[in-house]
Amino acid sequence: MPLNQQILLDSRPTGEAVVSNFKQVSSETPALQDGQVLVRHHFLSLDPYMRGRMNDAKSYAAPQPLGQVMLGGTAGEVVESRSPKFQPGDKVVGMGGWQQYSVVDAEQPGALRKVDTTHVPLSHYLGAVGMPGVTAWYGLVKIIEPKAGQTVVVSAATGAVGSAFAALAKARGCRAVGIAGGPEKCRYAVEELGFDACIDYKLHQDAASLSNALKGVCPDGIDGYFENVGGMVLDAVLPRMNAFGRIALCGMIAGYDGQPMPLTHPALILTNRLKVQGFIVSEHMEVWPEALKELGTLVATDKLRPRESVAQGIEAAPEAFLGLLKGKNFGKQLVKLI
Amino acid sequence: MPLNQQILLDSRPTGEAVVSNFKQVSSETPALQDGQVLVRHHFLSLDPYMRGRMNDAKSYAAPQPLGQVMLGGTAGEVVESRSPKFQPGDKVVGMGGWQQYSVVDAEQPGALRKVDTTHVPLSHYLGAVGMPGVTAWYGLVKIIEPKAGQTVVVSAATGAVGSAFAALAKARGCRAVGIAGGPEKCRYAVEELGFDACIDYKLHQDAASLSNALKGVCPDGIDGYFENVGGMVLDAVLPRMNAFGRIALCGMIAGYDGQPMPLTHPALILTNRLKVQGFIVSEHMEVWPEALKELGTLVATDKLRPRESVAQGIEAAPEAFLGLLKGKNFGKQLVKLI
Repeated sequence: MPLNQQILLDSRPTGEAVVSNFKQVSSETPALQDGQVLVRHHFLSLDPYMRGRMNDAKSYAAPQPLGQVMLGGTAGEVVESRSPKFQPGDKVVGMGGWQQYSVVDAEQPGALRKVDTTHVPLSHYLGAVGMPGVTAWYGLVKIIEPKAGQTVVVSAATGAVGSAFAALAKARGCRAVGIAGGPEKCRYAVEELGFDACIDYKLHQDAASLSNALKGVCPDGIDGYFENVGGMVLDAVLPRMNAFGRIALCGMIAGYDGQPMPLTHPALILTNRLKVQGFIVSEHMEVWPEALKELGTLVATDKLRPRESVAQGIEAAPEAFLGLLKGKNFGKQLVKLI
Repeated sequence: MPLNQQILLDSRPTGEAVVSNFKQVSSETPALQDGQVLVRHHFLSLDPYMRGRMNDAKSYAAPQPLGQVMLGGTAGEVVESRSPKFQPGDKVVGMGGWQQYSVVDAEQPGALRKVDTTHVPLSHYLGAVGMPGVTAWYGLVKIIEPKAGQTVVVSAATGAVGSAFAALAKARGCRAVGIAGGPEKCRYAVEELGFDACIDYKLHQDAASLSNALKGVCPDGIDGYFENVGGMVLDAVLPRMNAFGRIALCGMIAGYDGQPMPLTHPALILTNRLKVQGFIVSEHMEVWPEALKELGTLVATDKLRPRESVAQGIEAAPEAFLGLLKGKNFGKQLVKLI
C-alpha cells in the first residue's frame, strides 16, 4: 500500500486562520474491502466554505472535526478497484479531502463520479464544471432568474464561481458586471471572462465610494446580485438594486474570521422590494446534471476559459488556502499533487 | 357645497415627526363634474407607511407633497353622484385622504370600491378586510407559504396587520406567536386574537434577551416571520429562524425617523438559507379579491375580531398618527369623523 500524506485540522482558529491550525501526517492506505476503490488524487480543490467549517459554530455544515483529514473536493484516478463500477485508470471526482489518496465506498451514491476528460481538463471538474460552476448556475438561474437585457453583478468576479457566472450571464443576454480586487483581476475579468465591466473594490475606502463607482457601470441599476463576500461590498451594492431585484447570498467570506459584519441599511430590502436568499449548492443536487451539462458545453466550446491558481504538492495546501481567503489566488485555487 | 376640513403636510420632520408638521385648513368642496362622486368620510385610516411618505427620500412611494392633503385610506358614504356607478347612500372605501369629504373620479379603476356592511362593519374595510388585512395575507400566503404545524411569528402583533395574520395563520394550522409591547397587548393577543403565545418586547433590553424569550415559546424554531418593525426585533428573530425559513419584510417602523438600524448578523441569512423578501401590498392587486374574500369570511364568522383605536374628529388625526408610530394605539388606528 502506498504511503499517504494527509493534512489534518489540528486546532481551530481564534480570529484569522493560520498555518499552525493544520498538521501534516502520513499513514499507509488501508487494504481495500469489497466494493471499495483506491483513488490517487491529482488535484485538491480549495474553497472558501472550508474556512467556515474550521470554526466550531452553528452553521449549515457540521464543523470539521479536529484531528481528521480536512474535507474537500478532489479529482484523480482510480488506481485499484474492488468495485465493478470502476476500473483502474478511470478519471473521477469526489470528496477525498486534503490527502494524496482516498479509499472510497463506490456503492455510496454520489461518492465518486466518473468524468470524461476528452474535452474538459480534469482539474476543471473541481471548478467551472464542478461545485463552483453549479453554485454560479444555481444562484443565477434559480434565484436571480435574469431576463435578457438585465444587469447582474457578482463579487469575487475572477474566482471559480465568478468566472462561471459571467459566462452563464452572457449566455442569457445579460449585462454582467464584476467586482474584484486589483487592476490585473479587473482587466482579466473584462478581457478574458467576458464581463462588460469590472470594479476594483480596492480603490474604494468605503461603501459609498464603491456604490458610486457601481452606479457608473450600471447606469440602469442592478437587477441581480450574486454575493460571495459580504460586508462593505454588500452595503455598496444594496442601494444600487432596482425594484424587485434578487440577491443570491452564497458567501460571506468577509465575516469568516468572526469580525462583526452588519448590513447597514436593511430597510432597502423593503423599500426596493428585494428578495435576498441564501443557499448551499449541495442541497440542490437535482439541478447538477442540467447545470454541469451547460457548464461543460461552455468550457468545451471555449466560451468559458477558467483560470486556475495551482499550488504544487500537498504540503503547499495550507498556505494556498490562507492565500485564497485573502484573495491572493487568481481564478480557481487548486493543489496539484502529481 | 359643504365646508371641508382638511389636514395638510406643512413641513417635513427632522427626526421624529411632530404635530406642527401638519396644518388644518378648510375649503369648500368643488361642484361635481360629470363622472364624479362626492364622498363623505366616516373613517380615516392611519397607517405606519404614512410616516415614510413624510420624508423627502427615495422610497417605494413618492413623497407626500408639501401643502397637500395627507394621503390615506377612507371609508364613507356617497352623498352626491354624477356617475351611474354610484348612488347616494352607497358605502364606499377609497383613498380620500385626511379630510371630511373627497371628490372622486368614479371612472378611474380602483378609485372607489362599494362595500357591503351587512356582516362587516364599515370601519373594518380599512383594517382587517382592507389594506392591512391583505398585507398580512400576502406576506403569509405568498412569501412565508407556511405548512400546517410550522411556527410563524409576527411583530406588532395586535395591530391591524398582526391581528389578521394570527387568524390567517391559525386557519392554516400553524403555531402563531406574536411580539407586542406591554402585558395588556400580549394578553389580548393570546386571549382574543388566537395567538399561541405573545412576547412582550418591552421586557427586553437587547436582542439577545428577546431572542432567548422567543426560544422559549418557539421550541421548534421559527419557519416564517412577518416583520413590521425591524431593528432589535429583527436581530432577535433571525438567530431563531429554521433552515429554509422565510421572512416577509413589510415594515421597518423602527427606522422611520432616520436613526441607523443595521442588521447585526446578515450572515445568518446564508447559514440558515433564508429567504428575506420585501413587498408592498398595493403592487399585488391581483391577490386582493381572494384575500378580501377570506378575510371577510373570517370577520363575518367571528374568527377574526379586530380591535380598533378610534380618535374622534379630524382635528385629532395628527396626534393619533404620532401615537400610532409610538405603539400607543391598540389595534387598528382610525379617526371617526361623524
